[in-house]
Amino acid sequence: MKIAITGGAGFLGVKLARSLLADNALGIENVALVDMVAPPADLAEDSRVTAVTGDVADEDLLAEAIRPDTDSVYHLAAVVSAGAEADFDLGMRVNLDATRTILEIARRHGNRPKLVFASSCAAYGGELPEVVTDNQQLTPQNSYGVQKAIGELLINDYSRKGFLDGRALRYPTVVVRPGKPNKAASTFASSIIREPLQGQEAICPVAPETEMWLASPRTIVANTRRAHDLPAEAWGPWRAVALPGFTTTVGEMVRALEAIAGPEVAARVKWQRDPLIEKIVYGWPARFETARADAMGFHRDPGMEPVIKAFIEDELS
Amino acid sequence: MKIAITGGAGFLGVKLARSLLADNALGIENVALVDMVAPPADLAEDSRVTAVTGDVADEDLLAEAIRPDTDSVYHLAAVVSAGAEADFDLGMRVNLDATRTILEIARRHGNRPKLVFASSCAAYGGELPEVVTDNQQLTPQNSYGVQKAIGELLINDYSRKGFLDGRALRYPTVVVRPGKPNKAASTFASSIIREPLQGQEAICPVAPETEMWLASPRTIVANTRRAHDLPAEAWGPWRAVALPGFTTTVGEMVRALEAIAGPEVAARVKWQRDPLIEKIVYGWPARFETARADAMGFHRDPGMEPVIKAFIEDELS
Repeated sequence: MKIAITGGAGFLGVKLARSLLADNALGIENVALVDMVAPPADLAEDSRVTAVTGDVADEDLLAEAIRPDTDSVYHLAAVVSAGAEADFDLGMRVNLDATRTILEIARRHGNRPKLVFASSCAAYGGELPEVVTDNQQLTPQNSYGVQKAIGELLINDYSRKGFLDGRALRYPTVVVRPGKPNKAASTFASSIIREPLQGQEAICPVAPETEMWLASPRTIVANTRRAHDLPAEAWGPWRAVALPGFTTTVGEMVRALEAIAGPEVAARVKWQRDPLIEKIVYGWPARFETARADAMGFHRDPGMEPVIKAFIEDELS
Repeated sequence: MKIAITGGAGFLGVKLARSLLADNALGIENVALVDMVAPPADLAEDSRVTAVTGDVADEDLLAEAIRPDTDSVYHLAAVVSAGAEADFDLGMRVNLDATRTILEIARRHGNRPKLVFASSCAAYGGELPEVVTDNQQLTPQNSYGVQKAIGELLINDYSRKGFLDGRALRYPTVVVRPGKPNKAASTFASSIIREPLQGQEAICPVAPETEMWLASPRTIVANTRRAHDLPAEAWGPWRAVALPGFTTTVGEMVRALEAIAGPEVAARVKWQRDPLIEKIVYGWPARFETARADAMGFHRDPGMEPVIKAFIEDELS
């Protein structure tokens, strides 16, 4: 089996690559990791891994990773929400043009690879009902969400035409992400857990009562693999789905941190509202009924405390 | 006032141009009509009209029509449904790339023109409820619908960013179109009225009980102008809306023709089912609840008989 992962040196791409490479049943021959930066040492040293490093919107680079015999493409690379908002042209180039380039490369090869696309709940926005259902129109109020919604439409059409076998997943906000804050408007949701656990302060730019729709990295990787493995029939006429998550408030997240690590750790969260971040985050829905994803067997985290415990186990031990 | 209309020599573009030019209150200085073919004589001879004839996906051509002082752009040009289905690349180039080019030209000028975009109810599809409401997710099952849905998303984002002031309209199937059949899967809906009234046979490729969602050319022109004239506030956070139409069956359409023109005329409709056309047409919803458009004051035809009478008055007398 030959695989390409865009954003393959990012936190999710790395976890996905490790999960796939550890699965001997897959018989993996090669995993091409496309990213601006080189993958971590454990992956770089795996003889089955090819690092394809450079501009993820560059057609030649993408064609190095996605070959005529590539079986599966996981397209995770993106300019994140606040980044695409700050630089409109960069967002369009990476989030829209690069997606189209990937679809065209796959189409040209004619081998109909599977393609899993990381979409986002940022594709929702505007006037939303209390609980978002599978039927909800996508009316994103940020450029990142617009570009993701367009990617979903294209992947559906390329799949319907038989150019490839696509699956698009609207990820909830992923917590707890390891590493450093990024330019996503949601980056604080990981910072307020990750930094205090490591003795550092973290700024929370939204009010404690702010609700969020969350999933853990473990669950995201498991669901991304499940999306790939489900037969085409399981998708029916639409190749995009909102993944299960859980609803919590930012205040509850910090209380869960306190329950696990004590009040001193939780007190490292500083509340300092940022209207720009608030405007983006408040536009995202926090309550979903994911009937379709549930019926398709996608997984859901049981709540915030187990998510924090898993983070400590995976990243801090 | 300076206006550009893409698809300006098409049947709808011509009717819109005539309607605008006849409205002295607008103080029109120039209307640029962009199309593959030249406009009809009455428009070509109007000193306020500039014919911009050529490839509607060509940036230089579009920039000839959309100038730094263009106040309003009506973007009607498209490769229609069966055409975009038959030639995927042509559909992407005209329906997606040309739309992006137009948005970028407007953005570059920085004068924030109004832009009215002809979207389509073909943007709906897949598993739909009995009655489609304003909240319905767009899951188009044809490339034309996908490209229109993408246009809506882009126009929303360009409007939100303040690059232009966009409005996107999901047109119902327009009957009765004058002229010849085109490559739209819905073209028969006009042919079965137009051709019999002119002594010719017409083939109906779908069953009589097939429901359709229709609007007349008069109503489409009036609603397109209304969409332009409504203040930005009337649109709120989403710049796309499904226009009002009326639901009827193909059998009822032919019965309305019989009521107006007699059984001999109606007998010129020959029933000959075409599975390819049926597959596309059956995917389009025929019943809508257009609460938002109604509240915004958009117009609705009262039914099939007045629509046929208006066609006879406008086109055959």
